[in-house]
Amino acid sequence: MNHLLETAEKIRTMEIRGAGRIATSAAFALREYAETLKAESMEQFDSMIADAANILIDTRPTAVSLPNAVRLTTKYTASTVEDARQEIINNASRFIKQADEALEKIGTIGARRIHEGDLIMTHCNSHAALSVITTAFEQGKNISVIATETRPRKQGLLTIKHLNDFGIPTTLIVDSAARYFMKYVDNVIVGADAIAVNGALVNKIGTSQLALAAHEARVNFLAAAETYKFSPNTILGELIKIEERSIDEVIEPRELENLQNVIVKNPAFDITPPEYIDLIITDGGALPPGMAYTVIKEHLGWELKDLV
Amino acid sequence: MNHLLETAEKIRTMEIRGAGRIATSAAFALREYAETLKAESMEQFDSMIADAANILIDTRPTAVSLPNAVRLTTKYTASTVEDARQEIINNASRFIKQADEALEKIGTIGARRIHEGDLIMTHCNSHAALSVITTAFEQGKNISVIATETRPRKQGLLTIKHLNDFGIPTTLIVDSAARYFMKYVDNVIVGADAIAVNGALVNKIGTSQLALAAHEARVNFLAAAETYKFSPNTILGELIKIEERSIDEVIEPRELENLQNVIVKNPAFDITPPEYIDLIITDGGALPPGMAYTVIKEHLGWELKDLV
Amino acid sequence: MNHLLETAEKIRTMEIRGAGRIATSAAFALREYAETLKAESMEQFDSMIADAANILIDTRPTAVSLPNAVRLTTKYTASTVEDARQEIINNASRFIKQADEALEKIGTIGARRIHEGDLIMTHCNSHAALSVITTAFEQGKNISVIATETRPRKQGLLTIKHLNDFGIPTTLIVDSAARYFMKYVDNVIVGADAIAVNGALVNKIGTSQLALAAHEARVNFLAAAETYKFSPNTILGELIKIEERSIDEVIEPRELENLQNVIVKNPAFDITPPEYIDLIITDGGALPPGMAYTVIKEHLGWELKDLV
Amino acid sequence: MNHLLETAEKIRTMEIRGAGRIATSAAFALREYAETLKAESMEQFDSMIADAANILIDTRPTAVSLPNAVRLTTKYTASTVEDARQEIINNASRFIKQADEALEKIGTIGARRIHEGDLIMTHCNSHAALSVITTAFEQGKNISVIATETRPRKQGLLTIKHLNDFGIPTTLIVDSAARYFMKYVDNVIVGADAIAVNGALVNKIGTSQLALAAHEARVNFLAAAETYKFSPNTILGELIKIEERSIDEVIEPRELENLQNVIVKNPAFDITPPEYIDLIITDGGALPPGMAYTVIKEHLGWELKDLV
Amino acid sequence: MNHLLETAEKIRTMEIRGAGRIATSAAFALREYAETLKAESMEQFDSMIADAANILIDTRPTAVSLPNAVRLTTKYTASTVEDARQEIINNASRFIKQADEALEKIGTIGARRIHEGDLIMTHCNSHAALSVITTAFEQGKNISVIATETRPRKQGLLTIKHLNDFGIPTTLIVDSAARYFMKYVDNVIVGADAIAVNGALVNKIGTSQLALAAHEARVNFLAAAETYKFSPNTILGELIKIEERSIDEVIEPRELENLQNVIVKNPAFDITPPEYIDLIITDGGALPPGMAYTVIKEHLGWELKDLV
Amino acid sequence: MNHLLETAEKIRTMEIRGAGRIATSAAFALREYAETLKAESMEQFDSMIADAANILIDTRPTAVSLPNAVRLTTKYTASTVEDARQEIINNASRFIKQADEALEKIGTIGARRIHEGDLIMTHCNSHAALSVITTAFEQGKNISVIATETRPRKQGLLTIKHLNDFGIPTTLIVDSAARYFMKYVDNVIVGADAIAVNGALVNKIGTSQLALAAHEARVNFLAAAETYKFSPNTILGELIKIEERSIDEVIEPRELENLQNVIVKNPAFDITPPEYIDLIITDGGALPPGMAYTVIKEHLGWELKDLV
Repeated sequence: MNHLLETAEKIRTMEIRGAGRIATSAAFALREYAETLKAESMEQFDSMIADAANILIDTRPTAVSLPNAVRLTTKYTASTVEDARQEIINNASRFIKQADEALEKIGTIGARRIHEGDLIMTHCNSHAALSVITTAFEQGKNISVIATETRPRKQGLLTIKHLNDFGIPTTLIVDSAARYFMKYVDNVIVGADAIAVNGALVNKIGTSQLALAAHEARVNFLAAAETYKFSPNTILGELIKIEERSIDEVIEPRELENLQNVIVKNPAFDITPPEYIDLIITDGGALPPGMAYTVIKEHLGWELKDLV
Repeated sequence: MNHLLETAEKIRTMEIRGAGRIATSAAFALREYAETLKAESMEQFDSMIADAANILIDTRPTAVSLPNAVRLTTKYTASTVEDARQEIINNASRFIKQADEALEKIGTIGARRIHEGDLIMTHCNSHAALSVITTAFEQGKNISVIATETRPRKQGLLTIKHLNDFGIPTTLIVDSAARYFMKYVDNVIVGADAIAVNGALVNKIGTSQLALAAHEARVNFLAAAETYKFSPNTILGELIKIEERSIDEVIEPRELENLQNVIVKNPAFDITPPEYIDLIITDGGALPPGMAYTVIKEHLGWELKDLV
Repeated sequence: MNHLLETAEKIRTMEIRGAGRIATSAAFALREYAETLKAESMEQFDSMIADAANILIDTRPTAVSLPNAVRLTTKYTASTVEDARQEIINNASRFIKQADEALEKIGTIGARRIHEGDLIMTHCNSHAALSVITTAFEQGKNISVIATETRPRKQGLLTIKHLNDFGIPTTLIVDSAARYFMKYVDNVIVGADAIAVNGALVNKIGTSQLALAAHEARVNFLAAAETYKFSPNTILGELIKIEERSIDEVIEPRELENLQNVIVKNPAFDITPPEYIDLIITDGGALPPGMAYTVIKEHLGWELKDLV
Repeated sequence: MNHLLETAEKIRTMEIRGAGRIATSAAFALREYAETLKAESMEQFDSMIADAANILIDTRPTAVSLPNAVRLTTKYTASTVEDARQEIINNASRFIKQADEALEKIGTIGARRIHEGDLIMTHCNSHAALSVITTAFEQGKNISVIATETRPRKQGLLTIKHLNDFGIPTTLIVDSAARYFMKYVDNVIVGADAIAVNGALVNKIGTSQLALAAHEARVNFLAAAETYKFSPNTILGELIKIEERSIDEVIEPRELENLQNVIVKNPAFDITPPEYIDLIITDGGALPPGMAYTVIKEHLGWELKDLV
Repeated sequence: MNHLLETAEKIRTMEIRGAGRIATSAAFALREYAETLKAESMEQFDSMIADAANILIDTRPTAVSLPNAVRLTTKYTASTVEDARQEIINNASRFIKQADEALEKIGTIGARRIHEGDLIMTHCNSHAALSVITTAFEQGKNISVIATETRPRKQGLLTIKHLNDFGIPTTLIVDSAARYFMKYVDNVIVGADAIAVNGALVNKIGTSQLALAAHEARVNFLAAAETYKFSPNTILGELIKIEERSIDEVIEPRELENLQNVIVKNPAFDITPPEYIDLIITDGGALPPGMAYTVIKEHLGWELKDLV
Repeated sequence: MNHLLETAEKIRTMEIRGAGRIATSAAFALREYAETLKAESMEQFDSMIADAANILIDTRPTAVSLPNAVRLTTKYTASTVEDARQEIINNASRFIKQADEALEKIGTIGARRIHEGDLIMTHCNSHAALSVITTAFEQGKNISVIATETRPRKQGLLTIKHLNDFGIPTTLIVDSAARYFMKYVDNVIVGADAIAVNGALVNKIGTSQLALAAHEARVNFLAAAETYKFSPNTILGELIKIEERSIDEVIEPRELENLQNVIVKNPAFDITPPEYIDLIITDGGALPPGMAYTVIKEHLGWELKDLV
């Protein structure tokens, strides 16, 4: 239980962060807990596992990948403690393996959508989106990329370094210039922080502007998202919370001194409506946004009826 | 002639810059030149004025306000040197006066479009757009403003200071967050670098993204533009040139070292199509973009037939 | 002066109402005043006419047709009292004659847009719109009409009676059913309370919903408007005021008793944006909404420069 | 059988009406019938139940909830009469319970979509839509509502009374004013008479105009619908029939006397296309319209293959 | 094996062509092969069937119906050779029967969407689309058709002959005239070469232009597609290959002589995005395009998880 | 008068055809008539010229260029026969000269809109559109063209020959493939048969489909039109008549034998709404479609007031 509590604490304090790391850490912790726990009856086992699951989930109630990892790991049908224990261990291992392989699968599936000569625009610094781009490039496709700066944290600078290392011709622009260049673009590819049940995409602030400009110009808009990014709670009407981050990211505090009528807003994400998304590239296939529930059900094991 | 040549040189070297300053400096120079020149015949006078006009226009062939100022100043119907001289002097004075009063007129006309309680979004740091906002506020309307940062040069920081000084509640956001906040906005108001004959707006990079997001959300989009910003040459099919500015504005050069596959693009302006613009507020009235030619004709004195 | 003051009073108290009646009454009053006034100098004449004009205009500052009638009537170039007097008399007579003939001209011009077999939808009870419909029918075109009820005042019932008298097959529907029937419609034709300089149409509440539904279904949307309905003041940024009418039109007061949390809103008009209007049929021709300024200038005699 | 026949008759004569009451009455009748019927073999039981089911379904072939209730109730897998009888009894009880709880679940799920300070527009008088609104209000959210009158039957008057009783600030408007107020609205919430397999919404006439105006202004449009409102027959290409109601609802018959060229059309419902619907709030979760088949399958138990 | 190899060869050489004929020929060949093959163990049987399946699939890797037919036929759960053999025989027979009946089912389901008096537009010469039209006509619905010529191969001429034989009033137009007539059309119905997982329709070049024009005019757009036309591979991100056909179809080669700067492009198909498609009529029901995966899963037996 | 009557007869019998040839022939005929006519008074002269003008105009009442040519030629202000005669002669000569130079001016103005590397799509075989393309190419811009076949008369084959002679890389496609290639296109450029007062473009059937597809993909759409193509009569509400051409152009008559249920429709033109047109390139400048009236007034000399 110690390791599980430690993991829970690290997730709570955000020492462990990022949808992927949170998810695999939770699966690790549950696997270790299952391996060592002592239960005298199936009832006790059930209850201990349920407690452990809740401890983890409660650490960050709004994290999308956490309940997915916990549920997939703690789902068992066995009727003896030993069998159930083994089932959980297997579940955890399978989940971790799939999470590890997700980026590669997304790269392989997404790269099939990229044509020779394509100009691709990307935003922020998404491993999943970059996996699609670099996989296509390594298949020998002669492509180039426009990367947005992505204020306020300028993750675009990480992106251009990554693409430069692969030798992919890349152009850096400010976020405001996205529409200016959009009509020359063949595909926009971005990552995802979460996908809601209606296929809406929660991603880095500015994503929805790119999607709108792509839609205006009949440019394909692809989101690359690991299946554990799909949010079952949205079926319950739950809105995905948009984090408001420190205003220091936007402006140096001293510049605000004496500006008593000025405030700063710094939402970390925005929401791209499904009608602007052509396809979501997941490790479970390339799907239209309207199929989000199918992923939640077939990949994550949540049923409509269980939830309500 | 010396003052005129000096002015021409300053325009050429961009010591004098900004559409308004270029225009009034040219009118000043022509007035002084007209006041002092010595011509023995009307023919000589005509030719000297024509030469002076061309010297000025040739300094920055793509500046929009320059030919407007020169044409309005050097148009005369008199048949004697003294009368023509006086006509030019009067023209120049009138042009300078109108240019000086333009911001105030724009403020007065535009403020009529602002309702009590409006939330206004603005981009960059346009004197004309700010004149509308502050005039409405000084009329006692209880309004507030969202100002975009406006990368790469962050003119939004000037804007929030200006609005703060007036006591107007203002929120600063990064450019990427414009669509996120758009649905709460009542009016978007921006300035203009130039207006083409079809009503297309040339303005700070990012303007067209704001216009697109406003259009998507049925939010009014207003451009504030002095009449001398309207571009007669576009009637000839001339495209307004989009300036490509230094990449140092976007990224520190040392960050690009060793990134041999990366380039930076930094267009200063973009073009907002007329269908996204509800009204252009000028010192000559509030007009739909389709009336751009009317401004060019009635305010700037260019006729369709003269041009072709 | 007595007649003019009486007319002014009647306009102020809304004994005289309706854009057409207000306009012609003002022209009548000014004609009579001009016929009888005694002035000893041109200066005195100028000042007396200006005073009379202002008295009329001030009675209903937001009426659109009033300043148009006054300006067209009181514009003179003569330099003697008698000549100026005659000019005003002629102006008034011409204005009254044109206003009288406007409906017929609109009918003739508009009927050219109607094809054999057309199904036409109309809203409220506009004489101008009905003139187009009945003219087309009397030309032998086999047409039929859908008339909306037009809550709250149910002017649609007047419309169906009018059309019935002409023998035109007519269907009455509630306002909410407009989109349901829209896809079978060939032309929507409505009247106008005012036209703004950008071509926006101010008309009976519900008009903009019809226009939106017509636009969605690629159905032509025509507005029929006398030229004196065009609003010069909108060039100054002036918004056309939307009248809020008595809530008794919407609900019987006793039904609101004890509903202390309920209020009623009853705006009389709404604003249809120009992009949903295919053509405005005026007594001065069939024009796209973007040409509103041309009507203001060529028919009503206002210049951009005069106004600002 | 008597009770079942009585129920059938009441449904046929519309003494029992409304999707919810029809559905639960049918389930009641089938439960009572199952409790008391005498069958000597499984074959006889099967045939008697099938007959009873058909009697009910045939009473109103176009009612959407009826076949759903009958199918869910009469689905059994048991192989003995007693077991099957019990299964039907359980099915009926569960269906009735779920139908009873549906409004509350819809309220809970839908209220999660409502933010503090939201202005909500609703049309007609839907219990499901009102459940969302009042639940959100009772959670302490400071919201207000615009209710449309909903001609011809003015169900909006019921709605304002209901909302008034809860203390919710409410504004009544005529149907034509919906677009006028739309840009200030945060969410439109309406009920449903039926949902087709493609997610199209059949609801009170005027709903599709609201949806269109919401779409134009980027306002969320939510439909609240019990799962039994989803129509399995639409998978077979069946169109949902739009009831044409008495014209007396629209106009007093005496007003039509002598209007021999006038007819009245009074369709009760219209169809809102799925692209204008953001989410359907059901007792089975908040779903995008494209997931309608999932509800039909997972909640109502119909399979694509069974149907064709 | 001989028959299977012959069939494979005929598919490869396109002696057997057309999605339906390819699919049923493959099922036939597998049935015959299963009937006669000799296997000494289940392992041997499995391996022989797998080999046979691969031989067929490899003949035309991009044919959509081929893997569907092979998979549906070769799926068995039996554990003895004889049982498995029988299962395959049954699978094949069922597949062939369903394929044979598909057109009739599509006709029946689709005809329910056709109203009395409808004007239908169709493109190319699709048996499935024509089945909908002729079924509706034979049900006594008074309909008429606009058929496009369908350059370059003018399959429209086959269509008008087919419709003429049924006695259906038909109008032939060139492809360019589709938008001109669109506003009078009630339904556009076309066939399908393939349906991708996101509901995108691959069909004869020009289909997407029709869909766009229908969307612009709020005209229903229906695609008629046998379930075996749905493409499972698109879940893997696979793009459906657009065949480039001989330029001789477009222009006689001698006309190109001496035109050294001219080339000809002749893509056989284009892709209609799902947002322009109202419903896909299949032998498995009438479905929105977003349900394409459901068909792939429930009718064709592919699971998301199997594929990736 | 003989030459004038001959010309009239040739226009009537369509021996003289094409907007340009009709217009210049009429101007020629009027010039010759003016040169030789004998009038004893100004009244007689006026009446003879008016008769001659009417004879010409009546030959083809729907030709757009004919009234323009006649009006521009027969407009005089002189008060003596000799002066008026000279004025007409000068008018005719100027009109003919301008018509001759129009294509070159259109080429010069339009070419400014073409960028290095542009891919241009064109439809049919318009001299004006081709003038823009070839002028840009001869200025050294490296451009290429997609030409549509343009059924039924395949004028695209003339276009590819013309472009081939200039050495411009050209691709021929069938009309149906326009949307397929549209997203790679930078500019669509077409000619015009007529321009209505609202800026609507009457041009070869299929043009509006191209415009729609360009609009969908944010591709510029330019129409090239001589000023004499603008139609003053549309101000009167007159619709431009769409010619229905011989069905032999579409299908060989023998193919229709025995197809008694089939008819053929062959409209020669369609109408492109102004919202899909970015700019109209005329010999009088590059104008947005909303400026059509300005051309009618400033270039063709028609005033709103004269017409009604």
